[in-house]
Amino acid sequence: MSFTEFSSKLLESAVNEFASLPGIGRKTAFRLVINLLRRDPGDVRKFGESIIKLRDEIHYCRVCNNISDTEICSICSDDRRDRSVICVVENIQDVMAIENTRQFKGLYHVLGGIISPIDGIGPADLKIDNLEEKARDGGIKEIIFALSTTMEGDTTNFYLYKRLNKYDVFLSTLARGVAIGDALEYTDEITLGRAINNRNPYQQC
Amino acid sequence: MSFTEFSSKLLESAVNEFASLPGIGRKTAFRLVINLLRRDPGDVRKFGESIIKLRDEIHYCRVCNNISDTEICSICSDDRRDRSVICVVENIQDVMAIENTRQFKGLYHVLGGIISPIDGIGPADLKIDNLEEKARDGGIKEIIFALSTTMEGDTTNFYLYKRLNKYDVFLSTLARGVAIGDALEYTDEITLGRAINNRNPYQQC
Repeated sequence: MSFTEFSSKLLESAVNEFASLPGIGRKTAFRLVINLLRRDPGDVRKFGESIIKLRDEIHYCRVCNNISDTEICSICSDDRRDRSVICVVENIQDVMAIENTRQFKGLYHVLGGIISPIDGIGPADLKIDNLEEKARDGGIKEIIFALSTTMEGDTTNFYLYKRLNKYDVFLSTLARGVAIGDALEYTDEITLGRAINNRNPYQQC
Repeated sequence: MSFTEFSSKLLESAVNEFASLPGIGRKTAFRLVINLLRRDPGDVRKFGESIIKLRDEIHYCRVCNNISDTEICSICSDDRRDRSVICVVENIQDVMAIENTRQFKGLYHVLGGIISPIDGIGPADLKIDNLEEKARDGGIKEIIFALSTTMEGDTTNFYLYKRLNKYDVFLSTLARGVAIGDALEYTDEITLGRAINNRNPYQQC
């Protein structure tokens, strides 16, 4: 089906909106809209309003740039978290990924991207100045660079290191090595090379 | 990622709404919402409003029950269409599928479902009464049953036949046979059996 003709402009416009989302084709968009049409009008209104409200009312935490309903996010305002450790991540998805491990009890700093000359993203486009302020103002023991293990991630790590190296803060990165569950024969040689060089004392689990 | 904790209730509610759509999991829903967050607030408002408007303002054509922006849909109000032929379909998706073939120039009648005792859908749940009225009122030469070739479709065909048989209207169904492009060895035996019994004179394409 090519959906060249819709019998309703309202239907067509709703289908077009859904089809503008990543990974949603026109056939899927149509299926989703048909599903909405079968629902209670009140439920559909709630759906539409939740989208509008999200975009209009969302805040980004003044301290860490994480998404938040308030000026300061629930992580930054949580007294039980260790305020001396900051984990630097690319985006809010990464905050959620690390939060879901339940292994990290410090604070975050969301850069809002990663240095990528190809995409035209330079250091000035990222939230690096207020990260440097935190390092300079003191009270921070460690800053963990938790960026992707890509060329762009490594470039950003290096740039952050140059900016933050002069302050009295321990700078660290995530451990790199063979992923849990990975077969050695399918692990790329750079990862395997690093894993053998950075080997750890054997620990019984 | 299990997304047990969101740092924002607005984010969580938008993700939940998208995840309520068929075939959209929580990870995909999150990805879609992140995409909306990166857009212009005006665009997102347009998205949300198109959904609400669709559900609140949509009409179903008084004549054929097809989805429409007006009391009578663009097909039923088109003078160039043949008003003496009615094609009976299950839903609006089927109207669009047939319209896209550009082979049919008559009108439609959308039943709004199909008889399915398992799903608790009986003849009274479908728009059959006003189809019978059309047959009774005259002016209709042919009614085509264009329903799925399933048990439910066959049951509905049979029921419609019983209801409409008494009027002076030619009743027909879609041709059934081997689909264009299908290999004979993979065609199911019922289809192949019918195709051989209902064979047509050879025509050069």
